Amino acid sequence: MHVFIHQTHHSIADFKGIEEYLYSNLNKESHGLHIFPELFLTGYPLQDLCLQKPFIDKYHRLLERLTSKLPKLIDQEKCCLLIGGIKYNLNERSLPISIQNVVYQVGLGKKLDDIYTKQLLPNYDIFDEKKYFKRGTDSFIGEFFGKKVGILICEDMWASSFHEWDPVHDLMEKKKKLPKGKLDLTVNLSGSPFHINKHQKRVNRAKEISHLLNCPFAYSNRVGAEDEVIFDGGSFVIDGDKVLVEAKRFTTDLIQWEYSSENGPYTEIKKQDTSQTWEGLFNSRLELSTTPPTLEPLSDDQCMEILQALTLGIQDYAQKNQIKKFSIALSGGIDSSLALTILVLSLKEKQDVEVLFMPGQKTPQKHYELAKQLCSNLKVPMVNIPIKFLNSTALNLYNQHFSDRLSEYSENSLQARLRSLVLYTRTNQFNSMALNTSNKSEIAIGYSTIYGDSVGSISLLGDLYKTEIYEVAKFINKKFNDLIPPEIISQEPISVQKSSTVDTKSIPHYKILDAILEGILNYRYSEEDLINKGFNQEDVEKVLNLYQNSEYKRGQFCPILKVSVKSFGFGYRIPISKSKQLYTGDKNEP
Amino acid sequence: MHVFIHQTHHSIADFKGIEEYLYSNLNKESHGLHIFPELFLTGYPLQDLCLQKPFIDKYHRLLERLTSKLPKLIDQEKCCLLIGGIKYNLNERSLPISIQNVVYQVGLGKKLDDIYTKQLLPNYDIFDEKKYFKRGTDSFIGEFFGKKVGILICEDMWASSFHEWDPVHDLMEKKKKLPKGKLDLTVNLSGSPFHINKHQKRVNRAKEISHLLNCPFAYSNRVGAEDEVIFDGGSFVIDGDKVLVEAKRFTTDLIQWEYSSENGPYTEIKKQDTSQTWEGLFNSRLELSTTPPTLEPLSDDQCMEILQALTLGIQDYAQKNQIKKFSIALSGGIDSSLALTILVLSLKEKQDVEVLFMPGQKTPQKHYELAKQLCSNLKVPMVNIPIKFLNSTALNLYNQHFSDRLSEYSENSLQARLRSLVLYTRTNQFNSMALNTSNKSEIAIGYSTIYGDSVGSISLLGDLYKTEIYEVAKFINKKFNDLIPPEIISQEPISVQKSSTVDTKSIPHYKILDAILEGILNYRYSEEDLINKGFNQEDVEKVLNLYQNSEYKRGQFCPILKVSVKSFGFGYRIPISKSKQLYTGDKNEP
Repeated sequence: MHVFIHQTHHSIADFKGIEEYLYSNLNKESHGLHIFPELFLTGYPLQDLCLQKPFIDKYHRLLERLTSKLPKLIDQEKCCLLIGGIKYNLNERSLPISIQNVVYQVGLGKKLDDIYTKQLLPNYDIFDEKKYFKRGTDSFIGEFFGKKVGILICEDMWASSFHEWDPVHDLMEKKKKLPKGKLDLTVNLSGSPFHINKHQKRVNRAKEISHLLNCPFAYSNRVGAEDEVIFDGGSFVIDGDKVLVEAKRFTTDLIQWEYSSENGPYTEIKKQDTSQTWEGLFNSRLELSTTPPTLEPLSDDQCMEILQALTLGIQDYAQKNQIKKFSIALSGGIDSSLALTILVLSLKEKQDVEVLFMPGQKTPQKHYELAKQLCSNLKVPMVNIPIKFLNSTALNLYNQHFSDRLSEYSENSLQARLRSLVLYTRTNQFNSMALNTSNKSEIAIGYSTIYGDSVGSISLLGDLYKTEIYEVAKFINKKFNDLIPPEIISQEPISVQKSSTVDTKSIPHYKILDAILEGILNYRYSEEDLINKGFNQEDVEKVLNLYQNSEYKRGQFCPILKVSVKSFGFGYRIPISKSKQLYTGDKNEP
Repeated sequence: MHVFIHQTHHSIADFKGIEEYLYSNLNKESHGLHIFPELFLTGYPLQDLCLQKPFIDKYHRLLERLTSKLPKLIDQEKCCLLIGGIKYNLNERSLPISIQNVVYQVGLGKKLDDIYTKQLLPNYDIFDEKKYFKRGTDSFIGEFFGKKVGILICEDMWASSFHEWDPVHDLMEKKKKLPKGKLDLTVNLSGSPFHINKHQKRVNRAKEISHLLNCPFAYSNRVGAEDEVIFDGGSFVIDGDKVLVEAKRFTTDLIQWEYSSENGPYTEIKKQDTSQTWEGLFNSRLELSTTPPTLEPLSDDQCMEILQALTLGIQDYAQKNQIKKFSIALSGGIDSSLALTILVLSLKEKQDVEVLFMPGQKTPQKHYELAKQLCSNLKVPMVNIPIKFLNSTALNLYNQHFSDRLSEYSENSLQARLRSLVLYTRTNQFNSMALNTSNKSEIAIGYSTIYGDSVGSISLLGDLYKTEIYEVAKFINKKFNDLIPPEIISQEPISVQKSSTVDTKSIPHYKILDAILEGILNYRYSEEDLINKGFNQEDVEKVLNLYQNSEYKRGQFCPILKVSVKSFGFGYRIPISKSKQLYTGDKNEP
């Protein structure tokens, strides 16, 4: 049996593209078992789209066309397709009563019939599958070309203590009842989003399952970015501890593998510890053996992964929204410099970027020189637009009408907003896309001006802590021969006092800040936990206060390309209005 | 048996306030059955907060204190409390393995014991309860003061075809096994958000359940607004067709009722039709018998409901975020005029509002006069800040650096952003809250400038179509003696061409626009459906295109006070990146 893994990428609801892919990649000579990703037929994540009539109607017309054409396209005795899609149960108004996330089979006696329904519906972080899908209640082992094949969909392989059932365990039970107690192959149709280290976790878990079920494990993942969610591909076939074949990551691919009945060896293993939380499955980045804990540095491989993920993320967003031109405000600081560098490295033919340098009253000449040098290294033009006069005109207008003296914070905010005004006038003129250049540390403590430096269509670096920004910048310089002027990396962070109600000059050094933030976001630590881990109480209180008071800014942020287990964005949901005594204070509670 | 319904309001995680309420409202003389709202002990909706250690730790300390104090506070033989809260099952790291939405009982032999777990977890629109909560699997009838009482939590009363089980039906079955087959009372602890007509639906459904179970139905709802979600209270006791007692709406209340064993009469009724979708349970506003359909006009009662809801929403947001001062940009048009009027009507002591009128090059003198008149009627000062010079300075700066001629659209956008710049400089200075004044029709078609007129901390009118804006304005003028200068209502809408990529001058009249939008949002109609209902094809295509291309603007919008079944905001989740052929076009699909 020949196994094909189709690592594909289509826009959500791109039914035409999906159909064309099938017609141009399959024919009478396509023999063997073809495995497609989860929800190949629709795209993912669909969110509310899957509840809307335009989507449902067009999807059903696609299914009709495929049902009539696909069986004729292939040799039904020698080819079998396993395709991820959704299955509707509609009411009389053609609106869904229930929706299932299923595997369709074409060939070997089936026209386009659903054979399996996903059992574990992820519902944490960015996932809301229980909102839309009804779970399957039974595992499935099919027979294809004389082989017994267990089928899973994505999360089905990740049972933990959160789940009330474990599809892998079910397959182990069902396997015992097979002739000779033997399963020949397990396949998993996936739509598994990227974050740092996730791919290695998948490979490890696949090995474990291969040992548990005593058979190879074929994993088909989707690729491509949907707004903030990045799918990294990296499909594979694993047998025992061996990776037999592996697809490229961050790009479409088609891999093949000839099934051999000589598999193994398999060792008897205990089942993975499933008592942990979901986040525990995927290493968090805090080194807990030091006091206070520190962020583990990114390895070169991790930096490379991040770079590839961000490149894919920004380009898919641009292409899916038909953007050919980018606009970015460059300050000469590390964040905007790194964002611009990654953007330029990602540029495709016929795309260009416009860089605006907008010095204010206090901008040092040095920043201009560094920005200019960077643009020269990157071979992109830079437009220098001093905003001093516009700024003083705005200040004069204010002073004509109001007698209060503008605070330094108000002045800085005004200046940040003037820059976004110029930036967005350019994007309006050319329908270009403004890139947001904020980092995760800033977003976490609200250290940015709403409608000012926080603007943009999508945030490239919003899921990287300041520490990580430096690490990725250094990695790029190692790989691309000091593409970013080293002084941009070595200079002190540009820290104008930007936040709204507090003195941000006294926030801890970003290395401590980032470690505290990781504790809050990923370990969900309380003030007490953080102090017990060895952080300074004053630092902890300061950070927690800034964090809790900046929820309203995060609420209006653009999509943030997700590269960590816990990013701000769609998977982060905290109410703005809540007790001010929740994170800090109220120590004398009765 | 005396029944007390506590219609309460506390901030999310305001454990101190929650505790104080109990201690100051209960004592040895508090005899009878006291019913509190769903999740009284925590607040609602909690979203990810319920997963965080700071929340979990403080909540558990609250439970400990209540367990030791509450039983001593009351006469345990004569008083019984039914309190909504959550129950954690934690792992060794004190993080939740599962969370249940439960009723705690205090008194009559219980200290603070959970007796019932919510069975139906709403998971549509703004609700994500399956993300956080584990459902209960059994109905419950308890005995209190010799009475058999069935207990439900909120959604439990709303089973439809979407649900796999029906707690009301379960109670009917359990009732049959009781002595004489008699249930004495049903109670429902609720956290049911407001939208137009919802209260009447609740009353109707309660009557139905009272008839089904042959006993009175006591309903306790929370009140108060949490960001965009408004809880309207309106708790009641219903017996058969009679409303025995009813709490105020949109404010806290405590109602009482002496249980009488002379209840009824009850009529045998068929069970409510449950084949419809959830939205179908709550009337949508489209009059479908006309061709094309039109929005049903709002009644005076509905306008009053909306006014009360918005007043509560804006004030709770302000108070929970410690805001004493509001800022608003007034244009002389209907939207900002209505927003200002409602804001001023809602003002509490020690609050004030600053109104900025910022005329541009083309602003007619008439708008100044109307704005001035409105502020005079409302007795609030208005600051007149012409932005002409600032505007031309910005234009000059642009023309100095770029050779392209600014489009009318870019110019309008720039002007809108200069207004938000001045507005936000004021909010920065005084930590005031800027009110967003966009309406639902605008938001739906992207007819606003991002970072310009779309800014604000919270949107007061963002869930009202333009049609409804006029209706509410007229209602206010009827009730408050032409508070809004009638000419503001009678003048043509101020329609600068504001949208980004399309000619919005040719969008249909707002009455047609709003009906199409209601079809898209509430009925989830496709292009074909809309044309079949009698809308003009060109109008439909134009609106669908504008709608689908403005998702990115909605993504960065502030919270929108929700008054309809389907508002933009947290319960509206559509990906930005998706096939451009989904809503329109692709008519020649194979």
